[in-house]
Amino acid sequence: MSTPAELYESHRELLERATRAAVERDYWSAFPESPSKSIYGEDAAPSGERAFTALLGATFPVDVPGAVGTVSTEHSPYGMELGLSYPRADPLALVAAARATIPSWRAVGPRGRAGIAVEILRRINARGFELAHAVQHTTGQAFVMAFQAGGPHAQDRALEAIAFALSAAVRMPSTSSWTKPQRGGDPLAMTKTGTVVGRGVALVIGCTTFPTWNSYPGLFASLVTGNPVIVKPHPGAVLPLAITVQVCREVLAEAGLNPDVVTLAAEEPGDGIAATLATHPDVRIVDFTGSSSFGDWLEANARQAVVYTEKAGLNTVVLDSTDDYRGLLRNLAFSLSLYSGQMCTTPQNLLIPRSGIDTDAGHRTPEEFGADLATALGKLLGDPKRAAGTLGAIVNDGVLARLAEAGGLPGVVSPSAEIADEQFPGATIRTPVVLRLAAADEKLYTREWFGPVSFLITTDDTGHSLRILTETVRAHGALTALVHSSSPSVLTAAREAALDAGVHLSENLTGGVFVNQTAAFSDLHGTGANPAATASLTDDYFVTGRFFTLQSRHHVPSTPTA
Amino acid sequence: MSTPAELYESHRELLERATRAAVERDYWSAFPESPSKSIYGEDAAPSGERAFTALLGATFPVDVPGAVGTVSTEHSPYGMELGLSYPRADPLALVAAARATIPSWRAVGPRGRAGIAVEILRRINARGFELAHAVQHTTGQAFVMAFQAGGPHAQDRALEAIAFALSAAVRMPSTSSWTKPQRGGDPLAMTKTGTVVGRGVALVIGCTTFPTWNSYPGLFASLVTGNPVIVKPHPGAVLPLAITVQVCREVLAEAGLNPDVVTLAAEEPGDGIAATLATHPDVRIVDFTGSSSFGDWLEANARQAVVYTEKAGLNTVVLDSTDDYRGLLRNLAFSLSLYSGQMCTTPQNLLIPRSGIDTDAGHRTPEEFGADLATALGKLLGDPKRAAGTLGAIVNDGVLARLAEAGGLPGVVSPSAEIADEQFPGATIRTPVVLRLAAADEKLYTREWFGPVSFLITTDDTGHSLRILTETVRAHGALTALVHSSSPSVLTAAREAALDAGVHLSENLTGGVFVNQTAAFSDLHGTGANPAATASLTDDYFVTGRFFTLQSRHHVPSTPTA
Repeated sequence: MSTPAELYESHRELLERATRAAVERDYWSAFPESPSKSIYGEDAAPSGERAFTALLGATFPVDVPGAVGTVSTEHSPYGMELGLSYPRADPLALVAAARATIPSWRAVGPRGRAGIAVEILRRINARGFELAHAVQHTTGQAFVMAFQAGGPHAQDRALEAIAFALSAAVRMPSTSSWTKPQRGGDPLAMTKTGTVVGRGVALVIGCTTFPTWNSYPGLFASLVTGNPVIVKPHPGAVLPLAITVQVCREVLAEAGLNPDVVTLAAEEPGDGIAATLATHPDVRIVDFTGSSSFGDWLEANARQAVVYTEKAGLNTVVLDSTDDYRGLLRNLAFSLSLYSGQMCTTPQNLLIPRSGIDTDAGHRTPEEFGADLATALGKLLGDPKRAAGTLGAIVNDGVLARLAEAGGLPGVVSPSAEIADEQFPGATIRTPVVLRLAAADEKLYTREWFGPVSFLITTDDTGHSLRILTETVRAHGALTALVHSSSPSVLTAAREAALDAGVHLSENLTGGVFVNQTAAFSDLHGTGANPAATASLTDDYFVTGRFFTLQSRHHVPSTPTA
Repeated sequence: MSTPAELYESHRELLERATRAAVERDYWSAFPESPSKSIYGEDAAPSGERAFTALLGATFPVDVPGAVGTVSTEHSPYGMELGLSYPRADPLALVAAARATIPSWRAVGPRGRAGIAVEILRRINARGFELAHAVQHTTGQAFVMAFQAGGPHAQDRALEAIAFALSAAVRMPSTSSWTKPQRGGDPLAMTKTGTVVGRGVALVIGCTTFPTWNSYPGLFASLVTGNPVIVKPHPGAVLPLAITVQVCREVLAEAGLNPDVVTLAAEEPGDGIAATLATHPDVRIVDFTGSSSFGDWLEANARQAVVYTEKAGLNTVVLDSTDDYRGLLRNLAFSLSLYSGQMCTTPQNLLIPRSGIDTDAGHRTPEEFGADLATALGKLLGDPKRAAGTLGAIVNDGVLARLAEAGGLPGVVSPSAEIADEQFPGATIRTPVVLRLAAADEKLYTREWFGPVSFLITTDDTGHSLRILTETVRAHGALTALVHSSSPSVLTAAREAALDAGVHLSENLTGGVFVNQTAAFSDLHGTGANPAATASLTDDYFVTGRFFTLQSRHHVPSTPTA
């Protein structure tokens, strides 16, 4: 058993390194992304799989204060029978249990809480293969992606949030001296204290596609700044967060703290406890990833809380010109295919001038570009085994329905196809659909078609494309934007358009970096500057609303001032 | 004429010093608070008075885009005829003018904007005596207080906000390199940019009692983070902010920038343009100081904006024991009297145990304490000239009405008296009223009686007093709390109670520091942790919601990755 202070000391060097990385923003990672034996050990993969298998068909072992009965709500997109159940949450009991931990959690202080948080991450990392299976069979991500995005990448994002939260929380000194000279007398001398006080009970509402990656920044930022956290997973992806909560409670208890600082809120899909929790007067922080409709509802109704949302948007690609046409096609085809476009960062709207684009392989009309993109998709996804590793499985019927709807529209340049999976014959795997639209078809392309649906939209010229980028993103939001141009003036105009739109911009991605991916400690994910999100992962704004610094002051006893 | 970059270089040392002061939190001030000739020069006082007098009876010379006609709304609490008028604002024209400045103001960058902001402060400081008269004859503050609180103290608070805003805005690098090693290949290498983008048009809504002190932090924080600002003064206190806006526009124009980055929104009291502006879709930041009713309305209705409010509260004093009874009485009497209790920080509820308190002058029952406090008030305010210098004048009829209402209640231990002013016979000057109440009289003491009205409330014991502190502040808010105790365990309990209540705490103030006063660069003013305010002046939370960092990224050209 280690105290929070001891945990801080053990992880101090890592925290300092992470804090430096967050400032420098060069590449840095604390948790290796490769699921290789040389890193994680000979037995890590098989023992992780055994641990996962041992969980199936049973009630997950986690204490939930006030739980009544159990719920069982998950279905593997790979068709595997899971049979998992969880204690069914009573939202009022959870809030009461969380609230009761506030004074003791506050007393631990920011450094001790950061020590606890890093210890939790270390133990989650050690369960990486077990977690990868859990992520794969709830989200539909292919195994390697589930390992990476659900594991080390999420852990790096968590550590980044811990580093930001700790830096912000200790920026005001915990004690300071104040000595003001007085004309013709002793100075006024005071001692002042600053205590970090969390805003209140925090709620994290997870999503079904990235249950850990999208939940960890809010979870860990709230913890370090002194708030107990209720973790409300999506009913379709409970297990990755149940494992997370289990580890949190284990570390808290071992440090002699009340484990109810972190609790799990599993529900039947109809229970609606997210809304109940989010509007409870004691819940003062809400982190949400998911649909625009519920995100907007939270922003409008959880008025007693600060609300951090990541919702839907129109990720946009402006095609102007390129000097690496093959690289462009290969990179874009991969971005559209990765996890079947079920990423909040997948491009949807591809804007191309009516007159076509200049490339190193000659001029390409929109028709020719559409055909070339279809060919690139075919090449990428031609081998079923490799295709399954890229596409993963379709997470739910909503995505399938949109795919069917889009496939039935006129203008399909690359139709969606079914792919069979060797290992999991029950998996639902589909290739992306790409349609051609006109700039006037805005009714179609100004809503988000979450999943593998993209539109190749003909515009008057690149200036028109940039105007559409700015206007549609300002109105409907976006998490990513990409421009391809070999013209410096177009790149400058694209940067201005992205600043006006309030979206991060990638330029000329033709190699091993994809617009859907952001790197912890370097790339911000999302921006509060457009309707798709209210904050970035992770910057100061994301952490500073989670706590207050409360001061006390008194005269220095040795200098009587009366 | 200096460019923003040149202004940054001229003020760089001061900015660095201010940034260090904000971190260290020892006493530091950039703008001398003493209105002495040795500091501000032989001619400063008379020439400042001449400049003020020259403004009277005329339309104030400031350009307001789209203004139609003029308004004249101010009345001096000292009875002087002002006859000032201002261009009458058209809110839609102001928003349009502000919005048009956004791209060019964004392009100046955080350092250039900070240079502009400090230059503005320097010039405002140089007009300190003129401003002091303007503050005195709108707020009713006595001249020396008007000079200090409306001048150097407000300028220090502004500089503090500039330092926080600049530090936060440059924390993400404007360019960075990202190099990720790849197994068996060249590393992935990217160049990334970070651009600070303001949230949008900012609105500052001033109050009638501290038009500059309370408005400057939001004004300057918004400016430095890239937002144009519309300054909407209270109709009763326009001139101090009109002078401020005039200086802002002068500095902007001299730097070759569009002066509409800062505009003045003067109105007839019935125009209601604060509500119109605050709910305009392009207005994305609102800073407000004033009543709880309009502050709550803004928080509920200005949904497109981040809203920083400072409203009303129940500032509370817990009396337990003291080893400096004379110092306690003298200090408390001054706190109740300063500017006739018309400070958002003036104590209202004084909690004393039924059994009385132990002091170095013997045990005191609540009755005896009430009488002693009345005596202390009488001693402080016995000489009319000195009394006028402490009390200032009553700012409006609302305060007078509350004073009359309170004076008519039973239990008055120190009645309010009229004071005549030599220099301004028309001035409305009153001493404070103190009433005794029981803990059960919560209907009376759980609302704010803004002005010189305080209640001496009898409780069961100090534990009961601390519970009342926590419960009433959690429910109704407070900007300050004070405890007097010579018992370490009571002080510890009081600190915990203040943390639970979410309020800053002063302990055993018996000398030259008063609970109503906070020092820039050391004391936080307000806290978002109770209903009286949504943020502190000034911390990172106060500035980080005003901007976003938007990134762009591209591969390093010299390292082809395709």
